[in-house]
Amino acid sequence: MENLTFVLAPDSFKGSMTAQEVCEAMEKGIRKVLPSANCIKVPMADGGEGTVQSLVDATNGTIYNLEVVGPLNTPVIAQYGILGDGITAAIEMASASGIQYINEKTRNPLITTTYGTGQLITACLDKGIKKIIIGIGGSATNDGGVGLAQALGARFLDKQDRELPFGGEALSQLARIDISNLDSRLENIEIEVACDVTNTLYGETGASRVFGPQKGATPQMVEILDNALYHYSEIIKQQLNKDIANIPGAGAAGGLGAGLLAFTNAKLERGVNIIINYTNLKEIIKQADFVFTGEGGIDFQTQYGKTPYGVAQVAKSENKKVIAIAGYIGEGIEQLYGCGFDAILGILPQALSLEEALFKGKENVERTIENIVRILLIK
Amino acid sequence: MENLTFVLAPDSFKGSMTAQEVCEAMEKGIRKVLPSANCIKVPMADGGEGTVQSLVDATNGTIYNLEVVGPLNTPVIAQYGILGDGITAAIEMASASGIQYINEKTRNPLITTTYGTGQLITACLDKGIKKIIIGIGGSATNDGGVGLAQALGARFLDKQDRELPFGGEALSQLARIDISNLDSRLENIEIEVACDVTNTLYGETGASRVFGPQKGATPQMVEILDNALYHYSEIIKQQLNKDIANIPGAGAAGGLGAGLLAFTNAKLERGVNIIINYTNLKEIIKQADFVFTGEGGIDFQTQYGKTPYGVAQVAKSENKKVIAIAGYIGEGIEQLYGCGFDAILGILPQALSLEEALFKGKENVERTIENIVRILLIK
Repeated sequence: MENLTFVLAPDSFKGSMTAQEVCEAMEKGIRKVLPSANCIKVPMADGGEGTVQSLVDATNGTIYNLEVVGPLNTPVIAQYGILGDGITAAIEMASASGIQYINEKTRNPLITTTYGTGQLITACLDKGIKKIIIGIGGSATNDGGVGLAQALGARFLDKQDRELPFGGEALSQLARIDISNLDSRLENIEIEVACDVTNTLYGETGASRVFGPQKGATPQMVEILDNALYHYSEIIKQQLNKDIANIPGAGAAGGLGAGLLAFTNAKLERGVNIIINYTNLKEIIKQADFVFTGEGGIDFQTQYGKTPYGVAQVAKSENKKVIAIAGYIGEGIEQLYGCGFDAILGILPQALSLEEALFKGKENVERTIENIVRILLIK
Repeated sequence: MENLTFVLAPDSFKGSMTAQEVCEAMEKGIRKVLPSANCIKVPMADGGEGTVQSLVDATNGTIYNLEVVGPLNTPVIAQYGILGDGITAAIEMASASGIQYINEKTRNPLITTTYGTGQLITACLDKGIKKIIIGIGGSATNDGGVGLAQALGARFLDKQDRELPFGGEALSQLARIDISNLDSRLENIEIEVACDVTNTLYGETGASRVFGPQKGATPQMVEILDNALYHYSEIIKQQLNKDIANIPGAGAAGGLGAGLLAFTNAKLERGVNIIINYTNLKEIIKQADFVFTGEGGIDFQTQYGKTPYGVAQVAKSENKKVIAIAGYIGEGIEQLYGCGFDAILGILPQALSLEEALFKGKENVERTIENIVRILLIK
């Protein structure tokens, strides 16, 4: 029993614990029952918030702060990570250009820009990295990734050869794209884009119609932005010879997906799969007797690419047993039993407020895992 | 696997589910995983609230309503149960004389009476029963059980041979106890008193000092009541030749323990042990592969005679595995692992109010048990 191996591969519990902290609480719980158990901690993420932290924690990397241009063209402090290998960077676009920087009053997707995300990439390039993992959830923008490309040296010009101002609206005036000064280092950089949506750049399933409203777009703005992104994609097709508008994910993050495809060596992938590959989870899981995963919330939507689902898939491919925990167990978890989850348990000890639940995450993970292990040892 | 036998022996989840309802939710959860499992439902209790319901449910008995004299000498509707064997009755003193009938304004332990509890016993005797199980928690009274004895025909007289009024204060005037009209049927009735406290009738650990204040006794009232109960016990000693004041539990329920010992064939026992004996739990548990128990709340105090602890002790004596669930997991549950509990898990799916938690008890028990069984089946 003492020689059991547990692979601990949770996502963060948002607002409560980083994935690394969840791993540590899980390990504590296991060791209460099996002091000498083998616990392999693989903090996970799905490309959303916490991805940089998890990758840095998993690899003993470093997080850097950088002042960049925020989505509203005001300075914000963003983060990026250089992983332990020294040649891979991790970025969350939201850290520079996220929806947390706008509010009911200031939001305006006509003018928000991804420029700051491009500045983060430049900073990574300056560190000599060879590969970038970029999570693109949580954007405040609808600029087709033009801001990002501008930060990297591309120029977007109107008929009078004037530089376009920031934001998606201005793209309707786009006449010419000049990539002669685009950072040449990008040519040798592989960019893995963590992208869990399949939206196209424009149209019914496009960025503006589907995600514009939650960034503050009125119906009128949606029309303006959708037409502008269409026009933008036509110019890219004509001048760069790239047809990116209908690639699934092109419409992610207000069209940042398309921008990355147009101006960098990007490939879009499910976030959790990028992290699984990067952390070598499949190889690690081969050693496991049991796999523990978890996330702040688990419900039927977990099967649409959330971390615990990705972990469960890998574990099942190796015929391993998977137990998941969560602070919030929502509707429809019975749908998950058929797709890789052996059991799913909540961690809360009693009726309490969300605030208390978030505050006591570690002890609740520890106690719940301890009791799960106690049950596993029952024969 | 399909032939596994589960013994389900929870207490009620107070304010949410009867013990029977908990059993049913547990069974549902088990059957989601093992449709043909053998589920033996033994709704439990510890002598407190829910004891009558559990015993009636466990035996297919009947609950009766009866208008009786409440603790403040106003009518209240109380319940008693006749169990499925037709010869055993179950009573909770609180149903007739409980603290729920008084409030901040009306509480006055100088005058509250157990008369209504005596009326419940009379009603049981009228049904031809041979044995009474009586839970004595939650009393509003401090009358030494005199009201109960009065209802059963005893007379408590002062020096002028006048009947004493209701309440503990009047006992200071007690000169003579006349039991010539005490219901003679009591002679052949065995009364098992579910009593989890060891307080004496009077003195430092006596009913008035320890429990009087929570029933509204001021320090002055405590003195009056303590002296009155001392005087009462002296009269009992002299006239009935019974020395009951220092029997552990004599001070339970404002001295009702002493009154039952003085005027009936009562023996005091741990509540859960009475229920364990009555439900034949030890024999039933011999068939179990797993024992599931639980209660609304579990914490370190559970080891002081609460239902899950009693169930765990019986299970351990038969070398069975015990898993407990609760809506509220409190401090110090690690103290329970060493005394019979293999694992303890909370049932709440997410941060919520107590009200919501109570409302969703059944689905939460079902889902948690389902997942516990899923873990048990992991090999």
